[in-house]
Amino acid sequence: MAQSVLLTGAAGRVGQAILGGLADDHEWRLMDRDPPTDDQPGEFVIGDITDEETVREAMEGIDVVVHLAGDPRPEAPWDSVLTNNIDGTQTVFEAAADAGVEKVAFASSNHAVGAYETDERTPEMYRSDDDYLLDGSELARPGNLYGVSKAAGESLGRYYHDEYGLSVVCVRIGNLTKGHPPIDYERGQAMWLSYRDCAHLFDRCIQADYGYEIVYGISDNDRKYYSIDRAREVLGYEPRDNSAEHADDDSV
Amino acid sequence: MAQSVLLTGAAGRVGQAILGGLADDHEWRLMDRDPPTDDQPGEFVIGDITDEETVREAMEGIDVVVHLAGDPRPEAPWDSVLTNNIDGTQTVFEAAADAGVEKVAFASSNHAVGAYETDERTPEMYRSDDDYLLDGSELARPGNLYGVSKAAGESLGRYYHDEYGLSVVCVRIGNLTKGHPPIDYERGQAMWLSYRDCAHLFDRCIQADYGYEIVYGISDNDRKYYSIDRAREVLGYEPRDNSAEHADDDSV
Repeated sequence: MAQSVLLTGAAGRVGQAILGGLADDHEWRLMDRDPPTDDQPGEFVIGDITDEETVREAMEGIDVVVHLAGDPRPEAPWDSVLTNNIDGTQTVFEAAADAGVEKVAFASSNHAVGAYETDERTPEMYRSDDDYLLDGSELARPGNLYGVSKAAGESLGRYYHDEYGLSVVCVRIGNLTKGHPPIDYERGQAMWLSYRDCAHLFDRCIQADYGYEIVYGISDNDRKYYSIDRAREVLGYEPRDNSAEHADDDSV
Repeated sequence: MAQSVLLTGAAGRVGQAILGGLADDHEWRLMDRDPPTDDQPGEFVIGDITDEETVREAMEGIDVVVHLAGDPRPEAPWDSVLTNNIDGTQTVFEAAADAGVEKVAFASSNHAVGAYETDERTPEMYRSDDDYLLDGSELARPGNLYGVSKAAGESLGRYYHDEYGLSVVCVRIGNLTKGHPPIDYERGQAMWLSYRDCAHLFDRCIQADYGYEIVYGISDNDRKYYSIDRAREVLGYEPRDNSAEHADDDSV
């Protein structure tokens, strides 16, 4: 069923993957800091998520928020992730709760658990014959301050779910690349997310029923060390891609 | 062995419980925003943990940081916990790592997991005959934004341990009251922490060897729903008090 969806960070890579697959499937309100350079499949709000008033206005009449906005750089300095990712995400959750939004899908990241990739485990854990698997029930173990900020967003989501009844899904997004999986990069192949699987996964986040969830956002890669069982069970995620099958395939 | 310890938030209740028991056991550098009104068992630094330069200077020659400073109010508004608890704690960890400090004991809180106390579980979970037990391996489930900030501090600690080799213990402090356990308050009795057990627990945090730990800071209460097994095993914590035995006892 078509939903009224606010997409923050719409101009970023994840936003473009989502809109590439779902432009006609929902009623979109798109938000980003910079004005778009081409046609967009919905109303476009120019504004920063750290601007509370803009965020509150953007929530009006919205069923679902897909919250992607933030500093996306793994090496981002603390001050930036504190403001854009932690404080900005609180602003989004608070405004969503106040506006009576039903669901928030929050773009978390593999970097929230990046430090599980210890010297002892790598590179073996990136390979198909290795059994190591994270499933979303583990504690955050951030590999950088960006990852710390994403873990904080997950905790905020838990709080806004428990306190205000918001449905919240945190998607620990892997390595999103267009066309084909990363080449000569085992870690990237292990956590590859194809554009079409990304769009489908967020469509399920928009449509499925859930309370509070942490799921991994990757394709069904042979090399995976993130379980996608929870995304399958709770969201009905059915990925079509696998980095092992697309090494030289530009169609995904 | 006596250690050189920086105690942030020294003038607060937890700080006073620690100093009440351990004044002569370590070399203390005390830090708080307001000047002390009476004699102190060590050098006193007046300053705010959000002031990076003051924090960096206070770290010089320090073996262990006991980081208590922050807004302690469960009902504190977001802006305050963002600045004082999240940003302030990052400042402390960063400065500790840069200064070559060995260990940081971080005052987390029961509020980081307060929302496990659901309507279905309470008040039964506060009673001696109930088996429900959190052990520190569970995901944060904050009961308020203060709890969100404490969960963020735990993630920061995880990062500074993994990235810089700092030993970090996060103590989810229960209900610290002087003299006797809370009266007519089952939850408070379940998570009571006596002053002398508090001092002993932080002494163990100062002296024991560990990597990264999350432990509960409560006395050995019959009513407890927080396990103290990890604190016993890793830190050598040996609590002497139990709220069931001190209902009318002013000696603790």
